[in-house]
Amino acid sequence: MTLSVTEVSQIRSLPLQTRQTPPLVHCLTNQVVSNFTANILLALGASPAMVTAIEETAEFAAIASALLINIGTIDTPRYQAMREAIAGANKAGKPWVFDPITAGLPFRMKIAAEFIAEKPAVIRGNASEIMSLASLANTSFKGIDSKAGSEEALNSAQQLAKDIGTVVAVSGEVDYVTDGQRIIKITGGHPLMTKVTGVGCALNAVIAAYIAVAKDPFLGTIAALAAFSQCGSEAAFQAEGTGSFSVAFLDRLTQLQEISGFGSL
Amino acid sequence: MTLSVTEVSQIRSLPLQTRQTPPLVHCLTNQVVSNFTANILLALGASPAMVTAIEETAEFAAIASALLINIGTIDTPRYQAMREAIAGANKAGKPWVFDPITAGLPFRMKIAAEFIAEKPAVIRGNASEIMSLASLANTSFKGIDSKAGSEEALNSAQQLAKDIGTVVAVSGEVDYVTDGQRIIKITGGHPLMTKVTGVGCALNAVIAAYIAVAKDPFLGTIAALAAFSQCGSEAAFQAEGTGSFSVAFLDRLTQLQEISGFGSL
Amino acid sequence: MTLSVTEVSQIRSLPLQTRQTPPLVHCLTNQVVSNFTANILLALGASPAMVTAIEETAEFAAIASALLINIGTIDTPRYQAMREAIAGANKAGKPWVFDPITAGLPFRMKIAAEFIAEKPAVIRGNASEIMSLASLANTSFKGIDSKAGSEEALNSAQQLAKDIGTVVAVSGEVDYVTDGQRIIKITGGHPLMTKVTGVGCALNAVIAAYIAVAKDPFLGTIAALAAFSQCGSEAAFQAEGTGSFSVAFLDRLTQLQEISGFGSL
Repeated sequence: MTLSVTEVSQIRSLPLQTRQTPPLVHCLTNQVVSNFTANILLALGASPAMVTAIEETAEFAAIASALLINIGTIDTPRYQAMREAIAGANKAGKPWVFDPITAGLPFRMKIAAEFIAEKPAVIRGNASEIMSLASLANTSFKGIDSKAGSEEALNSAQQLAKDIGTVVAVSGEVDYVTDGQRIIKITGGHPLMTKVTGVGCALNAVIAAYIAVAKDPFLGTIAALAAFSQCGSEAAFQAEGTGSFSVAFLDRLTQLQEISGFGSL
Repeated sequence: MTLSVTEVSQIRSLPLQTRQTPPLVHCLTNQVVSNFTANILLALGASPAMVTAIEETAEFAAIASALLINIGTIDTPRYQAMREAIAGANKAGKPWVFDPITAGLPFRMKIAAEFIAEKPAVIRGNASEIMSLASLANTSFKGIDSKAGSEEALNSAQQLAKDIGTVVAVSGEVDYVTDGQRIIKITGGHPLMTKVTGVGCALNAVIAAYIAVAKDPFLGTIAALAAFSQCGSEAAFQAEGTGSFSVAFLDRLTQLQEISGFGSL
Repeated sequence: MTLSVTEVSQIRSLPLQTRQTPPLVHCLTNQVVSNFTANILLALGASPAMVTAIEETAEFAAIASALLINIGTIDTPRYQAMREAIAGANKAGKPWVFDPITAGLPFRMKIAAEFIAEKPAVIRGNASEIMSLASLANTSFKGIDSKAGSEEALNSAQQLAKDIGTVVAVSGEVDYVTDGQRIIKITGGHPLMTKVTGVGCALNAVIAAYIAVAKDPFLGTIAALAAFSQCGSEAAFQAEGTGSFSVAFLDRLTQLQEISGFGSL
């Protein structure tokens, strides 16, 4: 199933459009990656804000253009602030992205189950995370292989997308994005991207920015993944290791004006 | 109103003087920027410390040379720890800098009002933050325009400086520093400085370091702003984007020995 | 006392061995350095995880290959999560490293005393931290000089290693590692390493990774210190300041395959 010419053109122009109408992205993310996430959003012309107090998250999520929820370093106060933020975003009709870093821990699986019932616009995770969420959403689903590749998780991703009514992205050597019907494959990128902490977490923040601008979760998600794949490949040419890769990656993102293509286009 | 020759010479030599007598700067800042803030203080020869437990902040603020309070990711436990730190600093006669990231949120405006009543040595914010604080400090003040330039906020800055008895800096394309009477204008810098998260937050930490060494909040603040403006302009020449800008900026700060000038000198 | 040929060969090959069998390092570290720590572990081929909720730390520490405890920004919730993590690691027989950033504060000294009684596999600190811990562990010990060099702390380090049954590393211009009997001296490195925040904290995470792979706290600690010393010296050649040093340091760590030597070998 292919994208229409109009859709392709919208994906292509999203980086520029984002610079012209900067979205405010409310990030409730993990402590390890908050700085990198903010810098990546800024490089792409978006405005990050990391308001975290339970007294403020509902109000701020309603003001922001989109919300990111990442449970990588979740604890009880953070969980409560996130719950408020999700309620605020949903009430105001603002889209939100869920990054389910479950790490096989029961405390998080319970939170993840609660959060996906609140209908995020996009869920992005690796194969085992997506398969594990699909089993939560659909009790008839069986079997999780933590070493599964993104291809093996495709059925789970489609099922999850249908069950929740959301866009699901599965990350791996090849990335897939599905809205339950259509599947788009995004190739490119570079293994160094998995050796810098927070690349995936920051990508989810960019998805939030782009779906707010695109007003379309499916196209916005594809554009974000394609932007990272493109800038990551380019940055790797200049890299001697993870230090220079991060610098070059931020530089490429700062210069990004247009998506030049993606695997299955 | 100009600075005396002695004052200019003191400003000029502050970077070197800071390396010779390194101040210990207690930073209660937001989670997003703590790493970058610490690295910038270290590059300039100061010693950062991010002690945050309510059991320790009063004691540590009294030991430190100066204190930074930044409410960017404030929540209730952090607010309590900050209140203790401010009390500790005030009791020990140590200067402190207030960074009022209010974002228009009522929870923070209440905290900001409480904190400015404790008389920080320096307040630095953008035009809308300073205008909004001036209205808190002086109920007869009216009108806040969130899109205001730093020039438009000058009257508010002077009023706030007089009302509180503090130094106020307004950041923008051009920066202004006032002690209520005198106004100094600092030009230079580069737009890339607004595209790296925490440059402004780290600048406030440098103000804390420099006012501790200068023993003069007005001169120390001018020196900090001039140092950032100078190193930022230089770093931008080497930058291909925000990644290489950050690296070059830290390198310039590491090498900084002397303030070479500033706009209105 | 020298190392055997087998031991030297094991130290030499630890970087490569770590890439081949990546350890999962559970880091309960301070907020300032969590990103840098994760990136350094990734550059060396290890897997970082910063699970911090009290509901999860015991369970996760038992799953992980090794645990790092750093009390740099400790507060009461973090202390409780750390206590659980230590209990989980000890019960599962997993080694853990203690980074005692005590800063002379009583709240932390009490926590440090409690933690060292739980027998970390390795303790690494600067001279004054090690001397201060030795005095806690052995009440007959007297006298702490906060300006002491690593050499002056050697007796304390040996005493502490014997009292607790642990490996102790003292950092300074020259580093020392002792198991109570043997002492190994590691030279090299560069002063720029003290001007980037978190280099020491990240080193302790690498110790955790390497002792998990080596299954020997003494040899693993020596290898970690030697790796940092070697990559730090190399990175300094390319550095114009702390910004470019950090980048080059991460690049050198990414490329590291073998320890080429260390001071007293």
